[in-house]
Amino acid sequence: MTKNKIRLGVYLFPMPVVLIGANVNGKPNFETLAYVGMVESKLPLIAISSYETHYTNRGIRENGTFSVNTPSEGMVEVTDYCGITSGKEVDKSEVFDVFYGELKTAPMITHAPLNLECKVVKTIKIKEIVDIEEGHDLFIGKVEGAYADDYYLTEELPDITKLKPFVYSRNKYWKVGEFIENAFTVGKNYKKE
Amino acid sequence: MTKNKIRLGVYLFPMPVVLIGANVNGKPNFETLAYVGMVESKLPLIAISSYETHYTNRGIRENGTFSVNTPSEGMVEVTDYCGITSGKEVDKSEVFDVFYGELKTAPMITHAPLNLECKVVKTIKIKEIVDIEEGHDLFIGKVEGAYADDYYLTEELPDITKLKPFVYSRNKYWKVGEFIENAFTVGKNYKKE
Repeated sequence: MTKNKIRLGVYLFPMPVVLIGANVNGKPNFETLAYVGMVESKLPLIAISSYETHYTNRGIRENGTFSVNTPSEGMVEVTDYCGITSGKEVDKSEVFDVFYGELKTAPMITHAPLNLECKVVKTIKIKEIVDIEEGHDLFIGKVEGAYADDYYLTEELPDITKLKPFVYSRNKYWKVGEFIENAFTVGKNYKKE
Repeated sequence: MTKNKIRLGVYLFPMPVVLIGANVNGKPNFETLAYVGMVESKLPLIAISSYETHYTNRGIRENGTFSVNTPSEGMVEVTDYCGITSGKEVDKSEVFDVFYGELKTAPMITHAPLNLECKVVKTIKIKEIVDIEEGHDLFIGKVEGAYADDYYLTEELPDITKLKPFVYSRNKYWKVGEFIENAFTVGKNYKKE
């Protein structure tokens, strides 16, 4: 075996980039996250993991709601800005034009191509499940509403080639590249030698 | 506001693609997942969400371990194959050359460029937190070991340009594209007009 054991790290390649919105003391705040994943398709449910001391977490706890906004490539600078600044020190309520959906308390970014408003159905404090003094809050949110401009849709569904989202990996942002193959299809060609 | 409310769906753009490994009745089995996300950096912890009736889930419950294998672009066909076949009907134990790490029960794919062996620290049955009859199991795993060939490393860390992972979105696989900007850096240029 030629494999080497390497030192541990955050080794998920790549991760999606989203802007999480929450109202803190009644004012919109946004933070950038790559620790995000789908957990259920039926409702649907999405999980985000945000460090417990973050300003955004206060708002999520306060209202039991948050938004997930997908930025496009063109928004990379402002997206990164929301990741390197804290609402504790900088008022980010004026950074974006904001709208609200049916949950009323999850601020969404008008100019982001896709917005989800989510209601928290479960919170897991990571420090309560493993031996660390401080850690992330894992919020599982039920997506209650999804919003997009017509411009980003193909046959009424968001189209990745129009959204132009980007991904994160090891302190760098990357574009989504070329189409490779159709899922649930190309695997039918597989034959074990 | 020009936003339209659109019908709900799985709207995370894009999602990483991984092969989850587990021993079921002592034999390796693999399934393809895009419902995966980091949840903690310190240990680190990774969460995967796999439908409760899946064959792989049996093995994860049986051993309390699983592996996360990052396939490269060249593995797209076999990766999709593992997503469209169930271990209930097809023996996938011979699909890959397999190795084991310190956990002993989490089979890893030798030819995948990056492998993580994980110990389950928390399982959340989605049907117990929302009103559905059947759903996903969310497994939070502590990464206990990470493995890679030298070929895929730059300064001893996995390099996305060498791994060549791919992503999933709406029934299609896509390459990771060009570098855009440095994270934690480009946002310093942001100035609100």
